[in-house]
Amino acid sequence: MTKIPYKTYLTEDEVPKQWYNMRADMKEQHDPFLNPETLEPLSTEDLYPIFCEELSKQEMDHTTRYVDIPEEVQEFYKMFRPSPLIRAYNLEKALGTPAKIYYKFEGNNTSGSHKLNSAAAMAYYAKNQGLTSVTTETGAGQWGTALSIACAHFGLDLTVFMVKTSYEQKPFRKSIIETYGAKIIPSPSITTEVGRAILEKNPKTGGSLGCAISEAVEQAIKQEQSRYVLGSVLNQVLLHQSVIGLECKTALEKLGEYPDIIVGCAGGGSNLGGLIAPFMQDKITGKKNPRVIAVEPASCPSLTRGKYAYDFCDTGRITPLAKMYTLGSDFMPSPNHAGGLRYHGMSPILSKLYNDGYIEAISAEQTTVFDAAVKFAKLEQILPAPESSHAIYGAVKEALRCKETGEQKTILFGLTGTGYFDMAAYNQYNNKTMNDYIPTDEDLQRGFDSLPKVD
Amino acid sequence: MTKIPYKTYLTEDEVPKQWYNMRADMKEQHDPFLNPETLEPLSTEDLYPIFCEELSKQEMDHTTRYVDIPEEVQEFYKMFRPSPLIRAYNLEKALGTPAKIYYKFEGNNTSGSHKLNSAAAMAYYAKNQGLTSVTTETGAGQWGTALSIACAHFGLDLTVFMVKTSYEQKPFRKSIIETYGAKIIPSPSITTEVGRAILEKNPKTGGSLGCAISEAVEQAIKQEQSRYVLGSVLNQVLLHQSVIGLECKTALEKLGEYPDIIVGCAGGGSNLGGLIAPFMQDKITGKKNPRVIAVEPASCPSLTRGKYAYDFCDTGRITPLAKMYTLGSDFMPSPNHAGGLRYHGMSPILSKLYNDGYIEAISAEQTTVFDAAVKFAKLEQILPAPESSHAIYGAVKEALRCKETGEQKTILFGLTGTGYFDMAAYNQYNNKTMNDYIPTDEDLQRGFDSLPKVD
Repeated sequence: MTKIPYKTYLTEDEVPKQWYNMRADMKEQHDPFLNPETLEPLSTEDLYPIFCEELSKQEMDHTTRYVDIPEEVQEFYKMFRPSPLIRAYNLEKALGTPAKIYYKFEGNNTSGSHKLNSAAAMAYYAKNQGLTSVTTETGAGQWGTALSIACAHFGLDLTVFMVKTSYEQKPFRKSIIETYGAKIIPSPSITTEVGRAILEKNPKTGGSLGCAISEAVEQAIKQEQSRYVLGSVLNQVLLHQSVIGLECKTALEKLGEYPDIIVGCAGGGSNLGGLIAPFMQDKITGKKNPRVIAVEPASCPSLTRGKYAYDFCDTGRITPLAKMYTLGSDFMPSPNHAGGLRYHGMSPILSKLYNDGYIEAISAEQTTVFDAAVKFAKLEQILPAPESSHAIYGAVKEALRCKETGEQKTILFGLTGTGYFDMAAYNQYNNKTMNDYIPTDEDLQRGFDSLPKVD
Repeated sequence: MTKIPYKTYLTEDEVPKQWYNMRADMKEQHDPFLNPETLEPLSTEDLYPIFCEELSKQEMDHTTRYVDIPEEVQEFYKMFRPSPLIRAYNLEKALGTPAKIYYKFEGNNTSGSHKLNSAAAMAYYAKNQGLTSVTTETGAGQWGTALSIACAHFGLDLTVFMVKTSYEQKPFRKSIIETYGAKIIPSPSITTEVGRAILEKNPKTGGSLGCAISEAVEQAIKQEQSRYVLGSVLNQVLLHQSVIGLECKTALEKLGEYPDIIVGCAGGGSNLGGLIAPFMQDKITGKKNPRVIAVEPASCPSLTRGKYAYDFCDTGRITPLAKMYTLGSDFMPSPNHAGGLRYHGMSPILSKLYNDGYIEAISAEQTTVFDAAVKFAKLEQILPAPESSHAIYGAVKEALRCKETGEQKTILFGLTGTGYFDMAAYNQYNNKTMNDYIPTDEDLQRGFDSLPKVD
């Protein structure tokens, strides 16, 4: 009945063998990472105590356009990639839109999200350097799960600091991460100095990604054969996640399609940065001009209400400084269910692109996002993660605009993951006990007051 | 690095457009369903008060070899089919077996299992007949979720009676089923006569699939525009589920493979019957001779320790009688986590094939099955459902036998679903608080004593 299939899979051979580094095509680079004490730009070697060497190099490399994916990582990818590009026929029909809606679905692996793309790379490089363990933080739990799967595969010990709010909302994330052999600690915790300091200041805090990062970094630095890994924000993460966009572009080419509009949810930027990578190449080089829309939660609006400034990547103020859109490392986001988007900052690459006008951004309130999620679930059968549902909201908004104007645009969005571990959130939505939290200007000011003085 | 890909997907056009009815090739049919009062064979029309007409016809039809899949169901299938056939390279390597292990993975849809194949068909036929609602039971919750998704799509009201043990073990199944707009009631409940009777006799019962079936049937019969649907055991279910085996066979043919051994978990028989269908055609007609192995829980061993006899399909003794391997409709299985396999009986088709020597059967204890599940998860990244893990256990056993004998056999097993809603079970396993329950001969005798006197 339909010419374009619902689902398009590449063959195993068509899965990218190289990642794409957007920075190699960016006309201007983001401002350098700074040492928070000296305010001097960091060298690659300065990162070695935190990240393993290969990842440190990737973090700083803005000239290599394509990076070979190690064979072991390619083999790992074969267990869950390619991911399908799906035509949302049922959603289109229900909306009555002339727009064509596609989504790249990254949820069909046990981490439930795109996070496994970068987890595989990081675990591989750490193992390859001879390390025995890594530490990390997790918000919604998808990153922690992804890393536990990758560490089980490559044979590394793992300690996960999970944001306390999410830990309590999602008790089964603990079980799954433990099943893959990792240790999981709710953050802030008393196991680290920075955790104890945060708890002393605010004993009832539900934590944040910023807190959990501080604890994970501290724990990694303390141990000889251990390093820290991070599932978003970083340049290396966007590099690994480019596999999403590269697969997507090849699949669309096979269908004779090119997106007019690309929509992704934005927390730290891992998915959005990966999804848009090869399309942004076209945009920067003037080959094509797709609109790119980031959708963030109204409760944690770093792009739409944040400042473009140097800030710490963590709440404990122990990481390097990055120039990014930020709400301030002291900003404590309300307990929104999209735990993966509760981060005060934003990828420096995406921040630069946003600042330079390549990306638009909107924000959405929690209940509005769940309206879109439940509608989508009933139409397309996939139960989306709260984070991913921000992208659904954005795509539906654009599709309805096409309905008004009669334009048959091609909309692509990233469906980053599934909501199987978010049922407490869906339960709240179903029971109509879900609330929206929007920070006041005073709330934001308190965050901005914590910005370091750099200039 | 590998010639045969990890994952083989058919194209959308290659997904079967017809189901295959094994009965058309069986040399002997199973004994007819009987009216429990008159002990007379049932006619198709006798089923109309319980099942919708088209499904009643499918239930009785043993001559039509191929049944067209309605276009609406084909379209629905496109949202989640084809499912991948996966080569378990990492499992093979870890076992050090010369055997080639393939698995058909049916877990990549929101029901988390193969159940959506039959749910789509049943919801479609019910809607097409002009019904407004259906009722059903669910054990593990996969069938209830599948049917809620299908009913949301085709526009039917749904009431799900969920086995109380599972309902309590898996609180989030309720949330997901409600998200798709269905009503869910723990069984036995006070909403039906049969539920009240069961509770009066045994107030502390955790319920069983047999109880929940009684309640769902009673509720369906009471309402004019409602019918009952069932996710396993029935001939119609095996017909719909044949899509698994048909896809599988085509994919294997593309790879130049044919299975020497086929392994599936067995509760009511929905997955096993679907997986083996086209291979059993080869076996019955003498074209090929694969070994077929059913794996059931030691706690509910209908094939390995049951009787081949006429029995009720439910605990409340309101359904027709079916000739099948059964533990007796009064047999109350222990609270094993493989809720989908806690059924006293077995598909009449599979029972007949087992009795006639076409199928072998083994049973496995719960902790042994979880040993296999966790090993598999760490190697293949997919967290399997407890039910599916029975098949993993069986496949690993055969692969290790090949290691002993040095034979390079091709083993195919059905990975029916994911364990994302079974984390309480994994948690028990991780904490080493999981128990095995094996019924004593006296336990079984109590079940057998409840068998109706037919001859």
